[in-house]
Amino acid sequence: MLTGKHLIDGSWVEGGSTFQTVSPATGEVLQSKVWDADKPTVAKAAAAAERAFVEYSSKTPAERAAFLRQIAEEIEARGAELTEIAGKETALPEMRLNGERGRTTGQLRLFADWIEEGSCFDARIDRTMPDRQPLPRPDIRLVLKAIGPVGVFGASNFPLAFSTAGGDTASALAAGCPVIVKGHPAHAGTAEIVAEAIRVAIEKTGMPTGTFGLVQGASIESGSALVTDPLIKAVGFTGSLRGGRALFDLAVSRPEPIPFYGELGSVNPTFLMPAALAARGAEVATGWAQSLTMGVGQFCTNPGLVIGLDGPDLDGFLEQACKALGDVPAQTMLTAGIAKAYANAIAEREASGKAKVHVKGEASGACDAAPIVFEVKSDIWLENPALHDEVFGPAAVVVRCPDLDAVREVAAGLEGQLTATFIMDDADLDAVAPLLPIVERKAGRLIRNNFPTGVEVCHAMMHGGPYPASTDVRSTSVGTKAIERFLRPVSYQNFLQDMLPEAVKDGASTPVLDNGKHG
Amino acid sequence: MLTGKHLIDGSWVEGGSTFQTVSPATGEVLQSKVWDADKPTVAKAAAAAERAFVEYSSKTPAERAAFLRQIAEEIEARGAELTEIAGKETALPEMRLNGERGRTTGQLRLFADWIEEGSCFDARIDRTMPDRQPLPRPDIRLVLKAIGPVGVFGASNFPLAFSTAGGDTASALAAGCPVIVKGHPAHAGTAEIVAEAIRVAIEKTGMPTGTFGLVQGASIESGSALVTDPLIKAVGFTGSLRGGRALFDLAVSRPEPIPFYGELGSVNPTFLMPAALAARGAEVATGWAQSLTMGVGQFCTNPGLVIGLDGPDLDGFLEQACKALGDVPAQTMLTAGIAKAYANAIAEREASGKAKVHVKGEASGACDAAPIVFEVKSDIWLENPALHDEVFGPAAVVVRCPDLDAVREVAAGLEGQLTATFIMDDADLDAVAPLLPIVERKAGRLIRNNFPTGVEVCHAMMHGGPYPASTDVRSTSVGTKAIERFLRPVSYQNFLQDMLPEAVKDGASTPVLDNGKHG
Repeated sequence: MLTGKHLIDGSWVEGGSTFQTVSPATGEVLQSKVWDADKPTVAKAAAAAERAFVEYSSKTPAERAAFLRQIAEEIEARGAELTEIAGKETALPEMRLNGERGRTTGQLRLFADWIEEGSCFDARIDRTMPDRQPLPRPDIRLVLKAIGPVGVFGASNFPLAFSTAGGDTASALAAGCPVIVKGHPAHAGTAEIVAEAIRVAIEKTGMPTGTFGLVQGASIESGSALVTDPLIKAVGFTGSLRGGRALFDLAVSRPEPIPFYGELGSVNPTFLMPAALAARGAEVATGWAQSLTMGVGQFCTNPGLVIGLDGPDLDGFLEQACKALGDVPAQTMLTAGIAKAYANAIAEREASGKAKVHVKGEASGACDAAPIVFEVKSDIWLENPALHDEVFGPAAVVVRCPDLDAVREVAAGLEGQLTATFIMDDADLDAVAPLLPIVERKAGRLIRNNFPTGVEVCHAMMHGGPYPASTDVRSTSVGTKAIERFLRPVSYQNFLQDMLPEAVKDGASTPVLDNGKHG
Repeated sequence: MLTGKHLIDGSWVEGGSTFQTVSPATGEVLQSKVWDADKPTVAKAAAAAERAFVEYSSKTPAERAAFLRQIAEEIEARGAELTEIAGKETALPEMRLNGERGRTTGQLRLFADWIEEGSCFDARIDRTMPDRQPLPRPDIRLVLKAIGPVGVFGASNFPLAFSTAGGDTASALAAGCPVIVKGHPAHAGTAEIVAEAIRVAIEKTGMPTGTFGLVQGASIESGSALVTDPLIKAVGFTGSLRGGRALFDLAVSRPEPIPFYGELGSVNPTFLMPAALAARGAEVATGWAQSLTMGVGQFCTNPGLVIGLDGPDLDGFLEQACKALGDVPAQTMLTAGIAKAYANAIAEREASGKAKVHVKGEASGACDAAPIVFEVKSDIWLENPALHDEVFGPAAVVVRCPDLDAVREVAAGLEGQLTATFIMDDADLDAVAPLLPIVERKAGRLIRNNFPTGVEVCHAMMHGGPYPASTDVRSTSVGTKAIERFLRPVSYQNFLQDMLPEAVKDGASTPVLDNGKHG
């Protein structure tokens, strides 16, 4: 039933060489032939998106909202099929995939509501002042417009919510941008079904056929072609630091550089503050172990770094955490490549001899991973940047600090992070106070007494952070604020009413900043 | 009285080698010794900014507003002195410099008002839903925070409004970021006086001494050091395409890439629509010639490209424009280097033989420039990208199109622009309609029946555009929206009231998006 083809301008087509998809759990070949887009194939997809741009971006927010809601419905109509195929392709359990589907359709509907509300387009009117001296002020109006065709990379770890119709696609389509998705090669089948859902939604709501395209690809060429195509005006990416940085470098070295929104690596530090650790260390350890191993640790918000004061309370935390982690069996990772990278990274870290190893379980299959915890003193951690790196999977480093000064030094030594967590009681407030301004500069989201896994899709979510957590500290990949990625301001001076975009006409029904007053 | 020194951490200091400043009008040496910051000097300035960051960024908007207003007052107190020295350094006339001073103090006060109003910090609260299934929703709040220490490059053509206390400095300080300005070497004295005004304002309002620094510099090293210093988190620049792209490349190839806001080149196309051209071609020609030669054409919004339909109306326009331009004497440009670049660029364009030359005046001195107009058929223009480039100064290209299709082809062939202007009557609406969506993708500001010179400082201004007009199409360098350049979102999950930034505490007095409703 799956074709392995690309979706370009409303048609399923071949192009480029081919690759296979494989079940990570069994090694079984799932699709023996998926097309791997070469540069001309990507160029065709981008040209179709460009042809669709003016018509699609001129649709009213209500029309685009209806389209987004239709995509959600079409995805729901294919729910069982999606869970079945995604399960085979990713080894993620059914419950998780069903939940992820709900998140995917939920964010499509949230963006639909949000563009109808309209404040995200930041409409502004400064009215003429004909009598101003020495010169009259002309009428000037501003509104955010779609940036152009957008490229989106499917992510290995979220076959639905961060892939074909995931957050970047939803926000770009909401903004008025046609989208070309480069499907993740590990879940090409899932990508095809979701792309078909979008194709049908395009047909049912009368959008131009080029509004959405899917190019399948396993080669470096397919991804590079998308980032360097001159018709593509912004890119969203979730993946590894190495791959993401290489694509970022391509995006900014184009003749016309474009925004590249890469969500790369994060170890999501968790600060165990002394009073909380003393009062409830064991309970925290259990919760943390659960967060660390959820989804085989394959979350960008996985809490891979723990910082605490050396002493019996931290000993107790470690003991309880290791006990909880010891009960977690080895589990199948998303792909053989990811499992191998995990095994290599922990072997390298073990071989370095810099950190003490706890609870090293045995992986039972080629694609399996077991949890592991490294323990290290803060001065050793500070001296060894290799211990700071993200290991994608259920691996953690626990840093023992002699005192709160050392905790602050570790905080100051952190690279950019998606999240940072304080496990704290009220008695810890004085210790947290001087730590907070340091940590605030290191992370996009600060958390008190929750674990970072579980990213709410809402208005106040920042899922991003200083490099290398993301390549653009100004932007989020989750939540309604993500729409700003794909918008650019345009001013209209002395325009006639009929020539203006709806949002800045006199009497527009959506929010506007009128002569500096919100109306 | 001028020292030629750098302002670092509140003190005037030496550092690096030295250079001279020279009067463009007379060739007279103005300052025989200005320090040219080397890398260690820039590093000292950046370190001082970093030390100031936490304290300065934690000041309330009202405190920062008082500081901005004090800067405006200190600049006004030095008004006569500034005009005198800037006049010698730039050859700009007294009236222009007085006007530019008013613009500079006006935008400082506008940002002061705007941060007190508070909506620019985009405060958002999503309240907890403890009973939500399958999991409760935590309380999440978001607000925009200062990005970190900011580097700003003084611009050659606006010694006040786009330099030491210009738009980027004002918006970065408003955002809560300490600023290091790299003074433009052509107006080091003006930079020193303005920096002293800011230093006094820091002292009077109790801001940390590192909140503002000035490094003087004429070398590539001084600029490169600022962009690559690891403590600098964003850069604002106005200048040439070549220099700006080189600095952009440095900014994005740092280990931690940072936003680089470069305003580079623009020829600001003016479309002469047929009915308007027929009805009032002569009047338009006079206005256009005035806009082209204002400030010796040294404006980023200089209307250097005119597109019209071939025929007697365009002949009449050209004749009247050339007559008006012929009356404009050669005038002194900002620097000998700029005058030489202008002479070289027009000589190269003449030598290419691609375009017909009109009204070539004679430059009377080494630093002088006279207006020139090139005329070319649209097919020749489309085939010769060298004719598309900006020539900084009072030079223009008039493109003759055989029909409206050719006008649209020329529009489609444009590079990114700061502005695009339609000279049009109501009878031109049908001709403009299909042109508008093409031009809208090429420019940041679209104008009807005004000329593009004269950039309003207001809420609805977009002064930026697609590359190469700017290196970041999402952002403006003029108007209140410019503050977004220097802000980053941070989320706070499950935080206690006392730990939250003021803007997202319960009952905050500034605007907030509360559970998706504007309040």
